[in-house]
Amino acid sequence: MPKLSQRAERMPASPIRKLVPYAVQARDRGIKIYSLNIGQPDIETPQVGLDALKHIDRKVLEYSPSDGLPSYRNKLVGYYARFGIDLSPENIIVTTGGSEALQLAFPSCINPGDEIIMTEPTYANYISFAMQAGVKVRPIKTDIRNGYALPSVEDFEALIDERTKAILICNPNNPTGYVYTKEEMMRIRDIVKKYDLFLFSDEVYREFHYTDEPYVSALHLEGIEENVVLIDSVSKRYSECGIRIGAVITRNMQLRNAMMKFAQARLSPPLLGQIVAEASLDAPKSYMEGIYEEYIERRNLLVNGLNKIPGVYSPMPNGAFYTMARLPIDDCDRFCEWLLREFSYEGETVMFAPGSGFYTNPEDGRDQVRMAYVLKKEDLARSLVILEKALEAYPGRTER
Amino acid sequence: MPKLSQRAERMPASPIRKLVPYAVQARDRGIKIYSLNIGQPDIETPQVGLDALKHIDRKVLEYSPSDGLPSYRNKLVGYYARFGIDLSPENIIVTTGGSEALQLAFPSCINPGDEIIMTEPTYANYISFAMQAGVKVRPIKTDIRNGYALPSVEDFEALIDERTKAILICNPNNPTGYVYTKEEMMRIRDIVKKYDLFLFSDEVYREFHYTDEPYVSALHLEGIEENVVLIDSVSKRYSECGIRIGAVITRNMQLRNAMMKFAQARLSPPLLGQIVAEASLDAPKSYMEGIYEEYIERRNLLVNGLNKIPGVYSPMPNGAFYTMARLPIDDCDRFCEWLLREFSYEGETVMFAPGSGFYTNPEDGRDQVRMAYVLKKEDLARSLVILEKALEAYPGRTER
Repeated sequence: MPKLSQRAERMPASPIRKLVPYAVQARDRGIKIYSLNIGQPDIETPQVGLDALKHIDRKVLEYSPSDGLPSYRNKLVGYYARFGIDLSPENIIVTTGGSEALQLAFPSCINPGDEIIMTEPTYANYISFAMQAGVKVRPIKTDIRNGYALPSVEDFEALIDERTKAILICNPNNPTGYVYTKEEMMRIRDIVKKYDLFLFSDEVYREFHYTDEPYVSALHLEGIEENVVLIDSVSKRYSECGIRIGAVITRNMQLRNAMMKFAQARLSPPLLGQIVAEASLDAPKSYMEGIYEEYIERRNLLVNGLNKIPGVYSPMPNGAFYTMARLPIDDCDRFCEWLLREFSYEGETVMFAPGSGFYTNPEDGRDQVRMAYVLKKEDLARSLVILEKALEAYPGRTER
Repeated sequence: MPKLSQRAERMPASPIRKLVPYAVQARDRGIKIYSLNIGQPDIETPQVGLDALKHIDRKVLEYSPSDGLPSYRNKLVGYYARFGIDLSPENIIVTTGGSEALQLAFPSCINPGDEIIMTEPTYANYISFAMQAGVKVRPIKTDIRNGYALPSVEDFEALIDERTKAILICNPNNPTGYVYTKEEMMRIRDIVKKYDLFLFSDEVYREFHYTDEPYVSALHLEGIEENVVLIDSVSKRYSECGIRIGAVITRNMQLRNAMMKFAQARLSPPLLGQIVAEASLDAPKSYMEGIYEEYIERRNLLVNGLNKIPGVYSPMPNGAFYTMARLPIDDCDRFCEWLLREFSYEGETVMFAPGSGFYTNPEDGRDQVRMAYVLKKEDLARSLVILEKALEAYPGRTER
């Protein structure tokens, strides 16, 4: 049998999806699972998007252009303008989810062996995509005790050397829910400008922003227009995770042209998803407002509930629909697996994403889990009850 | 401005798509273009597939599992069984087109700097995906004069050393239309077995096979079950290029598990495309038969017509819907660009893919173009007239 590559061995399994086989087995045993592990909202897709599907009258489901349907890219310009982001259609390449946006951007900007700085905990798949591109991740730690605020300039500068090519931020943040303040965004801008780095800014949770502070996009920052690469996706915004439509956006046309060569190699983004995403841009204002209120209530219920459980701590996040929680446990991987394989309370259990997977060094997240508040409030309330019972029963419980 | 990566500079532009901007300009000038450059069939998508779209009654367009919908994978087992290929659903990972199948397989099997042997001319995007994965391509030349038959064992062995990790074949072949004989497939099997290599076999044109010889899939070959990785796609089979649904298939479960880590990082293949592809498996037998006859007629018309033009040669291909043609020209890139920017005949012109892009050394394909016979017969006939006129007018014409 031929030997697999070293990448295949080193590639981490997704902390969000690796427990799926145990969940399948638990369901087969009749256990009901509350899935807080994955950012799959239960919110309905906008009706205008679903209607667009039914009205497709094409006879041939043909390739779209490699950078996406012109009609969709034109309409996206109007979407970004609502947020004070001034773009032209040429700045936008439509991608197969936000995932592919990273798969186009990383190899176009960074040589194998060169480095990217990311705040940690980080979205686990950034680490995977960096590994795929041969790019080295330099994590910069953020701390649960101050809600995962941005580290100081000095902390960044301590990591920057001649191999540093980029900084990646996720804002609002997955997995922490943290939203960068204007002051923090200016801090990032200054570092990017001083060292002439690329700034990858994943802003797929733009609409999930629960403070009165103004939303600051990386594309709002002045003086680094050629450095910024926006990663976007309609997955969360319109509850359209399955259609796999994202975008990679830059005003740097040299970079745009380079990414287009990678985009042309994979031919085109999904046609059907683009049709749905384009129609969804016409979702009524009431659609997003309804979602917004719902998520705030869910967040408050979950985070307040977590902090009432002995030994548990979770900071109140200002955005996205995730929170990290510190639990009184020995090992989050063991705990999350145990929840599915050994535990149940009144025939039910809960599923979380182990915190270890959100750190380059898994040890750093051993006592943490990520929870997505994508379930109805009554299900979140029930999940809190089950978690409390589980922590009482778990053999690896630690004292805090 | 930060510097792009070396990959971004070295990445070749798609020979199939790089001329698109000139085509747009030509259309703006009112020129009608016959597009033989791209494998976008004009054949209609099966009605059962289109109907499935209209009947989607989901309220949330959610993620599918990373390896694809179980119902689709189960049904695919039956599809392959029709070709005498025995699989289980666990052997199949559904991908975002055949493109992504390669993007999962290459990095899982081959270390950066290690080598893959491919017959040349080769599908241009294989070179791109190899570059993305840091894999070195060792081309093995095939010759237009014998219709691009498989080279000898000795020719393969001359390229094999300790860095060689895989052989890639495309069968039926894009861009040549060549179909490997049983004897040639056994030759490949013996080499793969002797040196314990991976064998990537792209068989997306399985149904487009115009000889009475039996179809031999790499998955039919005995003794290399752990070595074979099948690349597949519904794009051409059902004229569903835009839905971006393919598959990567292997009986090597260690490799399957490795590829799943990459698949999980990108979350899931497109949901809507999977629904269409699953329904399309029920297309009536008459659907494929109609297509089959049509393509044989198109092939005969195009290739016979090409060989009647002075100085032009094209071998008669046995499969797919492409043919390579050698033209009496100085430079295929110049010629194809000239066709769009400077030439027209009665307000019309033709678009081909320059042959240079199908070779690792572009010089080797300077006098060739790839043509896809994906247009109606009358349009192909008209394209032949235009080509003949163009070759008479082209300032870079050479003598043959």
